[in-house]
Amino acid sequence: MKITGLRARDVRFPTSRQMDGSDALNLGDYSAVYVTLETDGALAGCGLTFTNGHGTEIGVAAALALARLVVGRSLDEITADFRGFYRLLTQDPQLRWIGPEKGIVHMATGAVVNALWDLWARRDGKPLWKLLCDLTPQQTVDCVPFLWITDALTPEEALALLERHAATRARREAEMRRDGFPAYTTSTGWLGYPDEKVRRLCREAMAKGFTHFKMKVSPDTDANLRRAALMREEIGPQRRLSMDANQCWEVNEAITQVKALARFDPFWIEEPTSPDDVLGHAAIARAIAPLKVATGEMCQNRVIFKQLMQAGGLGYCQIDACRVGGVNEVLAILLLAARFGVPVCPHAGGVGLCEYVQHLAIYDYVALNPSLQDRYCEYVDHLHEHFVHPVRLANARYQAPRAPGYSIEMKPESLEAFAFPGGREWRS
Amino acid sequence: MKITGLRARDVRFPTSRQMDGSDALNLGDYSAVYVTLETDGALAGCGLTFTNGHGTEIGVAAALALARLVVGRSLDEITADFRGFYRLLTQDPQLRWIGPEKGIVHMATGAVVNALWDLWARRDGKPLWKLLCDLTPQQTVDCVPFLWITDALTPEEALALLERHAATRARREAEMRRDGFPAYTTSTGWLGYPDEKVRRLCREAMAKGFTHFKMKVSPDTDANLRRAALMREEIGPQRRLSMDANQCWEVNEAITQVKALARFDPFWIEEPTSPDDVLGHAAIARAIAPLKVATGEMCQNRVIFKQLMQAGGLGYCQIDACRVGGVNEVLAILLLAARFGVPVCPHAGGVGLCEYVQHLAIYDYVALNPSLQDRYCEYVDHLHEHFVHPVRLANARYQAPRAPGYSIEMKPESLEAFAFPGGREWRS
Repeated sequence: MKITGLRARDVRFPTSRQMDGSDALNLGDYSAVYVTLETDGALAGCGLTFTNGHGTEIGVAAALALARLVVGRSLDEITADFRGFYRLLTQDPQLRWIGPEKGIVHMATGAVVNALWDLWARRDGKPLWKLLCDLTPQQTVDCVPFLWITDALTPEEALALLERHAATRARREAEMRRDGFPAYTTSTGWLGYPDEKVRRLCREAMAKGFTHFKMKVSPDTDANLRRAALMREEIGPQRRLSMDANQCWEVNEAITQVKALARFDPFWIEEPTSPDDVLGHAAIARAIAPLKVATGEMCQNRVIFKQLMQAGGLGYCQIDACRVGGVNEVLAILLLAARFGVPVCPHAGGVGLCEYVQHLAIYDYVALNPSLQDRYCEYVDHLHEHFVHPVRLANARYQAPRAPGYSIEMKPESLEAFAFPGGREWRS
Repeated sequence: MKITGLRARDVRFPTSRQMDGSDALNLGDYSAVYVTLETDGALAGCGLTFTNGHGTEIGVAAALALARLVVGRSLDEITADFRGFYRLLTQDPQLRWIGPEKGIVHMATGAVVNALWDLWARRDGKPLWKLLCDLTPQQTVDCVPFLWITDALTPEEALALLERHAATRARREAEMRRDGFPAYTTSTGWLGYPDEKVRRLCREAMAKGFTHFKMKVSPDTDANLRRAALMREEIGPQRRLSMDANQCWEVNEAITQVKALARFDPFWIEEPTSPDDVLGHAAIARAIAPLKVATGEMCQNRVIFKQLMQAGGLGYCQIDACRVGGVNEVLAILLLAARFGVPVCPHAGGVGLCEYVQHLAIYDYVALNPSLQDRYCEYVDHLHEHFVHPVRLANARYQAPRAPGYSIEMKPESLEAFAFPGGREWRS
């Protein structure tokens, strides 16, 4: 099967109108650079990278710039040396100058790489998580980019991690098919929501079985305390409440703010400061222990994750499916998390992120970290209706996907209606 | 003076044909995203960000995405609260998702911000370095983005650093006008050059008065040792020889390679590994001491520089004029370097980088670090003929620019001939 074309679309949903997704620094229109890889056969591969409105067109330009490296190759040629192909994509001797492996070019790389995995999974007739589970440890290691992380994880160590729980994989796979993977909800606590809406959403989420909730915090201590009290009042002392600062604090400010919020018993403190600040996260983690820091959704690549773990700055590892360079780099990060014993709690929400990360959370549990202790995959109840195979939640758990592929194919009518700027929803 | 339009051009020079700029990982066509800010007056502001061929079109898309934040504002409004405007550009609630402050979007920000400084300097009839020298300490501090760095440098500390050597500024300014700022040359040791060319270039550079040379190294130890011996043979034991790995090593590999190369007495080891790896640089710096590590040309923003200094991973700070968000963020990095006592040796070469950084090196010497001990500004002898006010070197020193502005305006005929893909040089 040969890849004959790469198409990239700018798709945007006007979510800012309802303040959905509002936090201390971000207020956007959930969007995607949507990539389709056409082939000389009946199948196509789909991938997207999540964006937030403005700038999605830059991602489209970036995806198109990668076409010359992908189009004309066969899927077999790529998967036979996926590590080599990943390096070719991410270390092109010209394109790497505007990275390397960071920012919108790397996000577009994630969309293209995920489209390749989608194509591979469809060809094999398996959901992505099952394709991953069925790779041998050596095949898996051969997909992982080890560039710049061997001081923390060598291919040999990765192989040992993949073999460690191989004997019991089948049991966990059956468990995931039966029960699914635990979710927590972020839908309740967006910063722009009025109090009554927050209360109503908390009650609705509890009725659906959620036991772990997230609220947004800001530089305004009084507002943070007031909203934390409100959330705790609704969900009670037993359920878990995480707090997300979305990078709005300085390092020292984060420590002060968290100490004030500690009486509301936060489960984790998310993105307390710049996603680039490894030493800052480590300083915060030391100061607020035993409370733990979570981050990842805006960490640009495996080198940052490696350092966060080396420095002890990461209590929960919030992988994102398409900020980094797609499945290959996510595998590197999952292996690092297993190596350092950091629980993985994927970032989701936006558009398509839930569809993506359910595969990664399930794979991580089956293959690498056989415990559900303190493990949750983020869930936000937005925009699933635009996908051909949307997530299915039951009893606050992600149900293991069954359709072949990576679940990221959007409905043609949605692609058309929300195309930016020409689609029906934007013309009106 | 009001900004009425933003134009962004894709300009590329076919340097890869001669292996100019070839190193362990990069081989490109020196290029630029060239930004012009039009005004309602006679003046226009020019800025560029340096790119390396493929992907320059992504930078053009990024610069255009910033137009809505710049066009329609007056220069006075912007310079009256430059810190606030910098934040508006770099923390837009939608655009920040594809950064924040990293990759090609941030590089395009650098081009736009530098065009604003160029406009400011032209309006005041001063070269950029002199405009900077004439700002009061408080005015300077008001331009600096302190977001995410106050754990290392507060506005009050920055003010004190700017006041520390204020009394003797005039003397150093006169010295710079008379003697210029010391340069070192990278033109001699590109990886793709044959031995005889390297020998000839070394002799030519020595004849011009250079005393500090740079060579490129790679993962191939034998080739590194052979080329280091050749360079040392040409330049002798007294002149300085720096070695640049351009990120090609793993952390542990870097330590081994540098220990093998130590007998050739390198002045610094540049970019030993990933530019994102703060802890890796610190580990290398500890292992190779008293040899020192230099890096910066691909460090994405002030948060990375802050950490490199906090961790002791940076022996020489190689600021780049347009990888980060332009003059404002460069000021933050210069202040951090002054705070941590790290000598600044700017990165140049490419196209336009020499024209840019001469201003920054001179300003840093006049205002912040009054010593020329171990201070050099990189020089590469390429593509200066395309600029209206090219660098002037004499006795291996950058001569202080005299024309108003930031020296980055390109000749109209060069912009036309090297426009990609439609210009004459690319059509043939």
